[in-house]
Amino acid sequence: MEGNIYKKLLEELELGNKAVMITVMDDKECGEKNCNRKILYTEDNIANSCISDLNKVVYEKAKQSLETGNLEFVQVNETESYLIEPYFPEPRLIVFGGGHIAKPLVEFGARAGFLVTVIDDRPSFANTARFPGAEKVICESFDKCFDLINLNRSTFVVIVTRGHRHDMECLREVLKHDTAYVGMIGSKRRVKGAMEQLVNEGYSKKKLDKVNAPIGIEIGAVTPDEIAFSIIAQVIKYRRLADGKEEKKILSKVNWPEIDRDVLMELCEEDSLPKAIITIISTKGSVPRKAGAKMLVWSNGKVSGSIGGGCSEGEVIVKSRYLLRDREYEVHRVDMTAEVAEEEGMVCGGIMDVFLEPFWN
Amino acid sequence: MEGNIYKKLLEELELGNKAVMITVMDDKECGEKNCNRKILYTEDNIANSCISDLNKVVYEKAKQSLETGNLEFVQVNETESYLIEPYFPEPRLIVFGGGHIAKPLVEFGARAGFLVTVIDDRPSFANTARFPGAEKVICESFDKCFDLINLNRSTFVVIVTRGHRHDMECLREVLKHDTAYVGMIGSKRRVKGAMEQLVNEGYSKKKLDKVNAPIGIEIGAVTPDEIAFSIIAQVIKYRRLADGKEEKKILSKVNWPEIDRDVLMELCEEDSLPKAIITIISTKGSVPRKAGAKMLVWSNGKVSGSIGGGCSEGEVIVKSRYLLRDREYEVHRVDMTAEVAEEEGMVCGGIMDVFLEPFWN
Repeated sequence: MEGNIYKKLLEELELGNKAVMITVMDDKECGEKNCNRKILYTEDNIANSCISDLNKVVYEKAKQSLETGNLEFVQVNETESYLIEPYFPEPRLIVFGGGHIAKPLVEFGARAGFLVTVIDDRPSFANTARFPGAEKVICESFDKCFDLINLNRSTFVVIVTRGHRHDMECLREVLKHDTAYVGMIGSKRRVKGAMEQLVNEGYSKKKLDKVNAPIGIEIGAVTPDEIAFSIIAQVIKYRRLADGKEEKKILSKVNWPEIDRDVLMELCEEDSLPKAIITIISTKGSVPRKAGAKMLVWSNGKVSGSIGGGCSEGEVIVKSRYLLRDREYEVHRVDMTAEVAEEEGMVCGGIMDVFLEPFWN
Repeated sequence: MEGNIYKKLLEELELGNKAVMITVMDDKECGEKNCNRKILYTEDNIANSCISDLNKVVYEKAKQSLETGNLEFVQVNETESYLIEPYFPEPRLIVFGGGHIAKPLVEFGARAGFLVTVIDDRPSFANTARFPGAEKVICESFDKCFDLINLNRSTFVVIVTRGHRHDMECLREVLKHDTAYVGMIGSKRRVKGAMEQLVNEGYSKKKLDKVNAPIGIEIGAVTPDEIAFSIIAQVIKYRRLADGKEEKKILSKVNWPEIDRDVLMELCEEDSLPKAIITIISTKGSVPRKAGAKMLVWSNGKVSGSIGGGCSEGEVIVKSRYLLRDREYEVHRVDMTAEVAEEEGMVCGGIMDVFLEPFWN
């Protein structure tokens, strides 16, 4: 393993790339440090990778995991197991134009779990007071703003400027990048003309077919709020059904795992202190956190992140400290069915399996 | 004209019925009071009505107006004109269940312009603090709550209780009424079973086909917010595209005019004072209020409602007082293109035609 693999992971996420980390646990001789090896693939390099290193089942599951976002734990036999963890970059919604549609859209985007950037060249529209839900508000001309943003495969782009000329200016630039979604406002007639013009300018038909214009799901939206609802519904659809990648082919629902960024940052730190990584690998019933959630436990008792709190968490922390001493990995079942206080009318408690592994930098 | 026609109008709206009011202006002898006659149709009685009373073009336009929500002013010849005004009840969204999906849905429903009622039998879920956007929060069991609500053709019903049994209990009762939309949560498998059960219980296949279950537009929604977005998008679609009324047939966009309820209430009052009704009949460009907006002017100078404010409104008020004296009607063009202050990047000003008519109770 060259360099810190979690650092590499965060770099890929920053570039907007999805990645899958495979933790191999087998009976091969292990060095002084970890007894498990970790391999990182992105969408680009998994396709070209050599599978001889990996069990074929594991390789296929890893590829699948990059599409569905589902974590997998594969136990091939008694001495050989694999943890397959997908990591997806936080999805970003970039809204060009800060007008009456952007106003509700930015709000809805944040609600739907996007990090939202909104861009306008008018100071009275591009200000944080107008867009409290936005992560970034950029006041810059539409030709210069592209230096300030990152367009990649985890970016969802909505073009709703105050005028068709600006919309086209943005679209031309956006089309040079590979994004998860592009939508542009405009009437059917106007959009048709715009597309014809772009074909004449040399943009490929295939690329243009992916532009959602007129924007939004067809629900007959009239008011700005309604239009924003129709847009956010379409953006969610592209995120969850991978509609944008392969036309007409609707994959199964994309889980889009959340990232415990703080935990990953800690794992990048060159502190050389041994720590136990605890990862939820499956859950059943009502549990506070889902598969993929992570917690770190240091041998000195320091804890970072959470797998859901409660007595069960304490029990896992104790186990982790033993594990750090013995340098082994373990799958542990946590039963919370008796733990959760009964709440009016709610099904309570649940069961989860967690994977415990020692980690050294 | 028996009784006050605006009182009748408000009664129909209260029942959830759409109505169209036709104001006939011709050269027939008029009595002591109004020189114009008003006729009110609902969706039910326009179909069975005798058209001999009306110009055929006007009759067809009135029928259309009930579907599209568009106001029409028809000038047949110099002495014969018709104002055709659609009135739609405020759309109501009724949410059964106050859980994690209802929470965002109620908020989104209010944003989309619905009067929202939410019902749950648990006090900790059915309270106004939890649902600030709701018009009504009803804490009552799902079998008794139906006495407290009105289900009609302007009601959009979402069933998202905490359990399938309660969902079915609500659906059975809802199906006895004619509503604009019904949606019920549930997996494909569970919903299929539920529908089969209801067929066995004697509910008609045609009626059941109109139930949106699983609920919401298919966007792969995962989180409660996403599910609420998918539901509100579907509800808006049923409101705006009249999807719910005729399967598969998507009408042109429904305008769903807003009601100046205060003005209508004033018109119901038996004060016998003459007043002028000013109605916007068409607009072009950027204007503060749209066709259908109403203002009343009394001969003593009292004013109620607004057609948008500004100098132009003052000019119309003066004209109205002359008109009250002469007991005539008039179409007046208001030009606001020079009036509106220039705002950064906005197209400013507009033109509107207003209809002025005297009215006595």
